[in-house]
Amino acid sequence: MSILDKIHSPADVRALGDAALPELCAEVRDRVIDVVSAHKGAHFGSNLGTVELAVALHRVFDTPRDQLVWDVGHQAYPHKILTGRNERMPSIRKRHGLSGFLRRDESEYDVFGAGHAATSISAATGIAAARDIKGEDFEVVAIIGDGSMTCGLAYEALNNAGHTDRDLIVVLNDNGMSISPNVGALHKYLGVHNRLTDVRTNPLYNRIREEVKKVIHAAPRLGTIGEMVEHFAVRWDDALKGMFVAGMLFEELGFRYVGPVDGHDVKRLTETFEQVKKMKGPRLVHVLTTKGKGFAPAEADQVKWHAAAMFDRETGAPLKPAAAGLPRWQNVFGQALTELAAEHSDVVAITAAMATGTSTDIFEKAHPARFFDVGIAEAHAVTFAAGLATQGLKPVVAIYSTFLQRAYDSIVHDVALQDLPVTFVMDRAGIAGDDGQTHHGGLDIAYMLAVPGMTITAPKDADELIALMRLAIEWKAGPFCIRIPRDAVPALPKPVREIAPAEHGTWETLRQGKDVAILAVGTMVLPALAAAEQLQREGVSATVVNCRFVKPLDEATLERLFPHHQHLLTVEEGTVVNGFGTFVRAYVNGRWPGVHGDSLGLPDGFVEHGERAELLADLGLNADGIAARARAVLGRPLRTLLETA
Amino acid sequence: MSILDKIHSPADVRALGDAALPELCAEVRDRVIDVVSAHKGAHFGSNLGTVELAVALHRVFDTPRDQLVWDVGHQAYPHKILTGRNERMPSIRKRHGLSGFLRRDESEYDVFGAGHAATSISAATGIAAARDIKGEDFEVVAIIGDGSMTCGLAYEALNNAGHTDRDLIVVLNDNGMSISPNVGALHKYLGVHNRLTDVRTNPLYNRIREEVKKVIHAAPRLGTIGEMVEHFAVRWDDALKGMFVAGMLFEELGFRYVGPVDGHDVKRLTETFEQVKKMKGPRLVHVLTTKGKGFAPAEADQVKWHAAAMFDRETGAPLKPAAAGLPRWQNVFGQALTELAAEHSDVVAITAAMATGTSTDIFEKAHPARFFDVGIAEAHAVTFAAGLATQGLKPVVAIYSTFLQRAYDSIVHDVALQDLPVTFVMDRAGIAGDDGQTHHGGLDIAYMLAVPGMTITAPKDADELIALMRLAIEWKAGPFCIRIPRDAVPALPKPVREIAPAEHGTWETLRQGKDVAILAVGTMVLPALAAAEQLQREGVSATVVNCRFVKPLDEATLERLFPHHQHLLTVEEGTVVNGFGTFVRAYVNGRWPGVHGDSLGLPDGFVEHGERAELLADLGLNADGIAARARAVLGRPLRTLLETA
Repeated sequence: MSILDKIHSPADVRALGDAALPELCAEVRDRVIDVVSAHKGAHFGSNLGTVELAVALHRVFDTPRDQLVWDVGHQAYPHKILTGRNERMPSIRKRHGLSGFLRRDESEYDVFGAGHAATSISAATGIAAARDIKGEDFEVVAIIGDGSMTCGLAYEALNNAGHTDRDLIVVLNDNGMSISPNVGALHKYLGVHNRLTDVRTNPLYNRIREEVKKVIHAAPRLGTIGEMVEHFAVRWDDALKGMFVAGMLFEELGFRYVGPVDGHDVKRLTETFEQVKKMKGPRLVHVLTTKGKGFAPAEADQVKWHAAAMFDRETGAPLKPAAAGLPRWQNVFGQALTELAAEHSDVVAITAAMATGTSTDIFEKAHPARFFDVGIAEAHAVTFAAGLATQGLKPVVAIYSTFLQRAYDSIVHDVALQDLPVTFVMDRAGIAGDDGQTHHGGLDIAYMLAVPGMTITAPKDADELIALMRLAIEWKAGPFCIRIPRDAVPALPKPVREIAPAEHGTWETLRQGKDVAILAVGTMVLPALAAAEQLQREGVSATVVNCRFVKPLDEATLERLFPHHQHLLTVEEGTVVNGFGTFVRAYVNGRWPGVHGDSLGLPDGFVEHGERAELLADLGLNADGIAARARAVLGRPLRTLLETA
Repeated sequence: MSILDKIHSPADVRALGDAALPELCAEVRDRVIDVVSAHKGAHFGSNLGTVELAVALHRVFDTPRDQLVWDVGHQAYPHKILTGRNERMPSIRKRHGLSGFLRRDESEYDVFGAGHAATSISAATGIAAARDIKGEDFEVVAIIGDGSMTCGLAYEALNNAGHTDRDLIVVLNDNGMSISPNVGALHKYLGVHNRLTDVRTNPLYNRIREEVKKVIHAAPRLGTIGEMVEHFAVRWDDALKGMFVAGMLFEELGFRYVGPVDGHDVKRLTETFEQVKKMKGPRLVHVLTTKGKGFAPAEADQVKWHAAAMFDRETGAPLKPAAAGLPRWQNVFGQALTELAAEHSDVVAITAAMATGTSTDIFEKAHPARFFDVGIAEAHAVTFAAGLATQGLKPVVAIYSTFLQRAYDSIVHDVALQDLPVTFVMDRAGIAGDDGQTHHGGLDIAYMLAVPGMTITAPKDADELIALMRLAIEWKAGPFCIRIPRDAVPALPKPVREIAPAEHGTWETLRQGKDVAILAVGTMVLPALAAAEQLQREGVSATVVNCRFVKPLDEATLERLFPHHQHLLTVEEGTVVNGFGTFVRAYVNGRWPGVHGDSLGLPDGFVEHGERAELLADLGLNADGIAARARAVLGRPLRTLLETA
């Protein structure tokens, strides 16, 4: 029986002898490799990096009484394995299985849910403040990656917590990477200090050394005394180097800095946390880890192995060869943007630590001087883009729909208010699949609709994506959104040069019927057409309109549709509460009362994780679901509805 | 003729002799005092602090070719005076007059609009990047207050810009204050270093000194040589102090630090900027200014004089004594929260640098241990509140509606997704008055409606505010919003203890009619009643409903209203695009087609500045406007509308 088999909760970790810890770590690591290679593709490299960290934290701290706040969550698989969820690990990221992130409703050990980066220090500060108000006594530990430290929220929290003398521990899990290699001055700073090498490249260190030289120069030249002073200066220089390794930056923000510590030496980690636990006030422990630790291919290519599909443990080769099928929407976008930028020298691309995810890495290779990865800093990405736009450039900001929520004020205050032509490509809009609740992009239509002057679009296929991108790049009258899903395109696009820009504010009537007008957005257009075919076989005649512009509405098309349809059904892969359906139906209610409307979309709630197609089917967001809803709409004859009024 | 009379643009500043600069500064300062005291209450203290800064910047830099990006904007009056807007200054913040902030459409010298804090470094980084892409050659200077440095956006931008070697200058205008005294570790850090005093309280300084002592201790005890080493150590200590003044923190983030410089010595400032202009890469100039400089009462009470109503220049006494009238919504909220917290020990209050603005300063005095001002850090404020809520406390977060846009993802991802009972008091919701475009809170209903599980409310009067606050504090089923305007309450409230909690999800039918149902939200309820009185005199019978819950809708009341009304008019002080009106009309369109609806609200655009009542009247958001719209709605008989369908 392995050690891990006996670990049912962290109390069991604490009951082990010290000597058993390295073996436990080896087994936990093996388990992570086992789960991801054999059961379900998942975040991988970051989880291999936190094995010793999770073991040491649960050994030293009295969890769940002491509260561990893991940032993002995709570094938390070892934590899940140790907190009673080992048996369920093969279900991770599967329908009804464990979440790939942290969830309060999954375990009492997940004290704060996470999926977006950099929330942990804020949450931990709140937990610590509540503890103090209530006069309780436990430790609060936030574990945050160095990638998250590019995010302003982490800084706001450090700045706030460092100002107090509240007991709080921040563990900086420094693997030198976000998903892509990190960017930003802090990363450079950590890079200098971490590896205990090359402190000489630090400008401040050099400046202090210059001061030392000045003082020496001013010292009396008295033979042995002069030598003594020089000897002293050399020793001082050594001390100075030590100081620089010691995380001044964090000390300046009010944290007691401890580290750096080897994050794969469980004994050393355990001892360090024991020490740190005895200290008071805000403390920061700097832990150096290796992304992919213990699985050679993942250590060698850390970007590729950030997340992994199932693979052969021996060779690292994928279990299922990549489907030779259609490209992802992201690929089409990245490739088309690269080609359009060759035509338009004013196009620049911005991403927030998601160059590979958004396929803007294609653009980067072709146009490096016009590409900007600003790190996990979405608000800055947008305000920075606004600055670029003031100079006549055409910035295209590619950010996941759910993360763009972080830049809402920058969109309103810096872009829309100034009517600047910034294009937002809202990636992973709608159902994001197995990343689940925190990663679905269900709100973008609703929050963008309220922004004055915003054009909001969603293409039905790859050709239309390119047509909308062409329009966006030529559009001068304010900001422009294009939403694309996490999926393969329905068909290969034509060459970029053969595609003309879409006409602003126009819809396409794809099928003319009379019983019900189905107004569909983006990914729902082709399923709506298929639904209409089904209905046709039942003798129901449906009109299908491709509402590729969510805002502005195509009023001319509405004029053509309504006197002639008595029923209206809207379909979108976004919240039903305040999305396109609500928007267009309020318009219809003002112009043509008597037209009965219904909306199909994401529910007013947070959708669980699972395969994208499966989730969409469950929500009725496919051909069958649309046809069923259309039947329901038609099942309520207008006469009856009007008679009740 | 004064010097200022001859300044029509910054070129005229550059044409002056050095000797004329102090006199010009005196005249500009006098002009700021003149404008605010005699013409229009406005931001005051911060503008008195930037007189020499504005003169020196426009003298040294070739504006508008070189681009100055002023943060927030309410430090920019001297800049406005020097850039061709002196004559129009008495119109500032008045209808059709100059904006109290920066606007690109007001002057070519306002290169980036601002009203919210901390956008300047991001924007300036974008401008500098565009310059480099285009191969142009000019300087970009961001001028940011130390208060804005608590905001994560400023850090994201520093971290990004410091990582490049791009030419960029950041001027840190350090007056030691936000609107309230600053908070946060950075402020403490600046406070230590700025004033050239008390470096001894800096923990890192002390740690380095300890190292020095260790080295000395290890040095040979050899009489004069030992003394010499000690002498050396003392000199070293002086050098060390110098280093600490020298802004290590910024050097670590990749900026060349220069300062601190006396921000009221125009000669010194000019020389410094000349020097800095010759340097390359990212540079930060630390300028020390005094809020209220040159007007004694404003120097003495910097919080009170952050903004000022018109006053007597000699005495500082207000020109119009404060109206003895009704209290502001904020006062009622702050007072009631304080009383409710005395009943409920789990209530805590959080604000983001707006303790006085939101009247949470009342709460702070009574319950200091349960009050948190986290600085200009709205996202952190919300995630911090989520942390507090996980421990069973009841956080009440008071943030201006427009600023809460900065915390949208924290609201969705940290609060709503985890169903945590955090209350948001959205202050300055709707028309904020003379602060204008950047400060109106028009989007909150729209962006909150999309958030699953959110309760959204707006009280019609002070009693109802308290009833909703009681409910919010007792509410366990997820987050809760209350929106209040920048205005006086319509009537004094009853004592807090006499007011019962509102019933969740219920509306009040205040007046029963039959021709049109007016569904009004918050501030629009009493005007809607007055409109109904007007209509009654014309023989039109209107129902008026107080829709104090925007979400969830009161379906029972809707059931009672709609078979029986053929026309529906919604009225709210929020965007018409996707607000309450759209939400309820889409519902009605699904249930009772045949009911004709219309919505009155803020337009789908950015509303200019002016007096609140005047702006509301212009937008039809008062009794006359509501009555007029109701007449228009009724002027379209339902029969005609249905016949077209």
